[in-house]
Amino acid sequence: MQNNKPVTAILRVHCPDQKGLISRVTDFIQRNNGNIVALDQYTDRFEDHFFMRVEWELDGFDISRDEIAPAFEYAIANPCQMQWKLDFSDCRLRMCIMVSRLSHCIYDLLARHRSGELDVDIPLIIGNHQEMAAVAEQFGIPFHLLQITKENKAEQEATQMKLLADNKVDFIVLARYMQILSEDFIRAYPERIINIHHSTLPAFVGAKPYHQAYQRGVKLIGATGHYVTADLDAGPIIEQDVIRVSHMDTPETMVQRGKDVEKIVLSRAVEAHITRRTLVYKNKTIIFK
Amino acid sequence: MQNNKPVTAILRVHCPDQKGLISRVTDFIQRNNGNIVALDQYTDRFEDHFFMRVEWELDGFDISRDEIAPAFEYAIANPCQMQWKLDFSDCRLRMCIMVSRLSHCIYDLLARHRSGELDVDIPLIIGNHQEMAAVAEQFGIPFHLLQITKENKAEQEATQMKLLADNKVDFIVLARYMQILSEDFIRAYPERIINIHHSTLPAFVGAKPYHQAYQRGVKLIGATGHYVTADLDAGPIIEQDVIRVSHMDTPETMVQRGKDVEKIVLSRAVEAHITRRTLVYKNKTIIFK
Amino acid sequence: MQNNKPVTAILRVHCPDQKGLISRVTDFIQRNNGNIVALDQYTDRFEDHFFMRVEWELDGFDISRDEIAPAFEYAIANPCQMQWKLDFSDCRLRMCIMVSRLSHCIYDLLARHRSGELDVDIPLIIGNHQEMAAVAEQFGIPFHLLQITKENKAEQEATQMKLLADNKVDFIVLARYMQILSEDFIRAYPERIINIHHSTLPAFVGAKPYHQAYQRGVKLIGATGHYVTADLDAGPIIEQDVIRVSHMDTPETMVQRGKDVEKIVLSRAVEAHITRRTLVYKNKTIIFK
Amino acid sequence: MQNNKPVTAILRVHCPDQKGLISRVTDFIQRNNGNIVALDQYTDRFEDHFFMRVEWELDGFDISRDEIAPAFEYAIANPCQMQWKLDFSDCRLRMCIMVSRLSHCIYDLLARHRSGELDVDIPLIIGNHQEMAAVAEQFGIPFHLLQITKENKAEQEATQMKLLADNKVDFIVLARYMQILSEDFIRAYPERIINIHHSTLPAFVGAKPYHQAYQRGVKLIGATGHYVTADLDAGPIIEQDVIRVSHMDTPETMVQRGKDVEKIVLSRAVEAHITRRTLVYKNKTIIFK
Repeated sequence: MQNNKPVTAILRVHCPDQKGLISRVTDFIQRNNGNIVALDQYTDRFEDHFFMRVEWELDGFDISRDEIAPAFEYAIANPCQMQWKLDFSDCRLRMCIMVSRLSHCIYDLLARHRSGELDVDIPLIIGNHQEMAAVAEQFGIPFHLLQITKENKAEQEATQMKLLADNKVDFIVLARYMQILSEDFIRAYPERIINIHHSTLPAFVGAKPYHQAYQRGVKLIGATGHYVTADLDAGPIIEQDVIRVSHMDTPETMVQRGKDVEKIVLSRAVEAHITRRTLVYKNKTIIFK
Repeated sequence: MQNNKPVTAILRVHCPDQKGLISRVTDFIQRNNGNIVALDQYTDRFEDHFFMRVEWELDGFDISRDEIAPAFEYAIANPCQMQWKLDFSDCRLRMCIMVSRLSHCIYDLLARHRSGELDVDIPLIIGNHQEMAAVAEQFGIPFHLLQITKENKAEQEATQMKLLADNKVDFIVLARYMQILSEDFIRAYPERIINIHHSTLPAFVGAKPYHQAYQRGVKLIGATGHYVTADLDAGPIIEQDVIRVSHMDTPETMVQRGKDVEKIVLSRAVEAHITRRTLVYKNKTIIFK
Repeated sequence: MQNNKPVTAILRVHCPDQKGLISRVTDFIQRNNGNIVALDQYTDRFEDHFFMRVEWELDGFDISRDEIAPAFEYAIANPCQMQWKLDFSDCRLRMCIMVSRLSHCIYDLLARHRSGELDVDIPLIIGNHQEMAAVAEQFGIPFHLLQITKENKAEQEATQMKLLADNKVDFIVLARYMQILSEDFIRAYPERIINIHHSTLPAFVGAKPYHQAYQRGVKLIGATGHYVTADLDAGPIIEQDVIRVSHMDTPETMVQRGKDVEKIVLSRAVEAHITRRTLVYKNKTIIFK
Repeated sequence: MQNNKPVTAILRVHCPDQKGLISRVTDFIQRNNGNIVALDQYTDRFEDHFFMRVEWELDGFDISRDEIAPAFEYAIANPCQMQWKLDFSDCRLRMCIMVSRLSHCIYDLLARHRSGELDVDIPLIIGNHQEMAAVAEQFGIPFHLLQITKENKAEQEATQMKLLADNKVDFIVLARYMQILSEDFIRAYPERIINIHHSTLPAFVGAKPYHQAYQRGVKLIGATGHYVTADLDAGPIIEQDVIRVSHMDTPETMVQRGKDVEKIVLSRAVEAHITRRTLVYKNKTIIFK
């Protein structure tokens, strides 16, 4: 999908609000002959905090790739007390999928990847059950089975983290991975683990949300794509959506029908991450357009 | 709206599931020359419980209005251990609106009523603040101001209940009424008080749900129309819907934008109640089509 | 999914409206000791026409499978001038997928099939381009390449129809198959060819609907699952859904984002067909619940 | 709603794309001590055309209100070949509602206006039937009855236009006004007449769209808020939305249920216009956030 697009630099910044921020940043780019192709900014009036994402073409830009970061740090980020990230559109992220027994999310991700929709590399899939090995094999992606018990959890996580490091994984997608990651694991990938939870959080935290939804007699069920933090199901929300249910739905039909909204929400969350349109601040996300 | 429609009998039943229920009930109607215009049934496989709503034209029916109930009780309800309600489509329900300071729900209900959409009588409106008196006056409906303090709550509720009784009120709509009703009040109108809560329950129970939603950083906000029970915001859900929000929304814009979904969800819940399409069982609703 | 469910008979009927239809049909079932597990009926007041779907357990039913049809014909269908279809839930339908170059719909169908969601057999896939052969191979399903030119169209269709017959195909899913079928082909599979069109019909009939949508500047795009008739994109609609777009969307991003709604709508339409919940009458569908 | 908000200048511009546009405009504002509170920009890559809306606080801005326009024209608009509009947030627009017989849209607009949601003045309402006079009276707004026949149309439009001029009307909302305006009338209010059409255009142009929808057997109905142009129902679309219908819906229930989506879509379109977030280019809208 990204093939013939010109390569761009993508800059995400945030800092205390102050006059002239947009003009300073755009001036920096345009004075150096950068052609801005997208800009989205937002000021949080409660926090008096400024957020911006700006993307410009590298072709013709006067500053070489390696020197953009120090130049920006010196000219703008430092004097404005900015936090910032700089990415380049041709740096494909490396994504690991972790999965348990259900196939709908992993099939959806792999089908998108195969068709070129999902602009990432997927060097490996990690499962805590055997079932999804066959799906990985269909798509020719190495599958690592690491079953988890109370006793071996620390050891298996160490193996997982070594695999992630060896494969230079940038971020992890929990595609219905039904194991809670340790705090150490989570801390190693801050804002880089995306989970799909099968409810519209904060409703129905924890296990069996569809059964909880059935018990409560709701008329909508949904899914939440979020970054994983140490607090279970409490991380920054990237995307949510719902579908309508009725008194005729059972926990089983909810599980079944919910799969569609889960896979779509997860893929939108992953897409937002890959295209560097997310920014986390105080446990919430800004999703740039 | 109901004007030229033929008058119908509306029967809602539920009982332990058993063979032959549909055929017994429809046979009862059809043997007595009733023309069935709507039938919806549902069997809960977990509870082994049967639910049905059937509606037939009274014109030409062999049993007179007054004798339908005893005949049905004798022939079917009693032998099948059925719980049931019988209504007639030409019995307009009498609805009381209770309201505090916000006008969007009450305006929506009154505009629907005036245009003939809402097939009820509205003999009175009760407010605990003065603000909505002007709206009631615009529509020529008596407004009773009953301000509530900790000290006078019991006394004011007694006055409210006398007003409801004097006006032969069948059911009550809390159109953003920001007072918690006492258990005694609620018990006097079981499954006859409809509240609109400004979140998709069970998320954000209690006060200021939009502020809670803002704090959590959700991407959807919504509303829930439900029957009021003694447990706060935990009664049977009739209808829910959502709208999309983003990081740009503040509690104030959520309050503002949420009004649209609140008023639509409330009116759908009221419509379901009026057309006798709701049935409550174990704190959940069956909503017949 | 259907595995441990009891086997059921599924009867869909329609006929001129007349008193006593529901009771006659349910009485027929219940008198013969059938346990009704689902019943949905609807009367079209404009056409004075009655529609019903009823499903009951075969286990314990007094009439053997083979004799249900003649018994029903004699006792009810004939005297009531009914049109009807009788199916059994354990008769898996045989589905052929026809596809051109895009993979999102076929991947979605095959992933559902593999996971057991889609209760059908898929004996073959027919493509008019080579691209999807690899996808068919991933799932181990025979792929037949039949490229179509103006000159060979009649001949290739003859081959297609022979393949369908040899494989005892019950119905065909056009999973973004970008060829118009001949009237003869369509007539051979009445109400048994399901197409996904990438607009909310009747908007944007014909080629390149997303480009048409872009030109018109719409704020919603969508998809329509429908039965194919000789009139292009004019057959009975089974299911539709939409997603929101904005001025920022190009034809390319619409094509991309539309894929999600296409595949979900198509799968819902296929599911409705498989579970025998569709009934076509005067170019419209009744979708039983 | 706008009460305690600081007064802002709102600038909407578009021009052929060229480097440095964002930085030029923001620099102009920020060099003159303007505090930007919102900025949204978009480049159409097909047309190579640039669009931007920027809003900044007037308080503390170095250029006085009256001089902003000439200063901006001289410094930026002229050299960049920009088309532009400058507005001030404290200039309340004057809106005329035109209406026929249905009350749902006008009630919704007037209730929003009364509650302070809709930041406009409504000096008059024009009806071509008597029915809505009572609604206008409820809200204390002058109602002008101008019945239209083939014979008197030109004359009545002249009267309408005089009323609009006398009342210094800025824009007109056709709240289910079932008369086609003449080209002369439309030309007098370019991009200043908002209509609600009760279908998701371009489906079901013209009369009785719900009846057309019923005939076609669609599963979604909707509404479109658009600017009126000389081509019937073909003007730039501002907002659209849909609701789900089924085979059980008749034209009458569609008319009834569609009212909710019509009034919500119309109010969103009006809100976008009032907050100066719309920009029309080549018969499409850019809707700034």
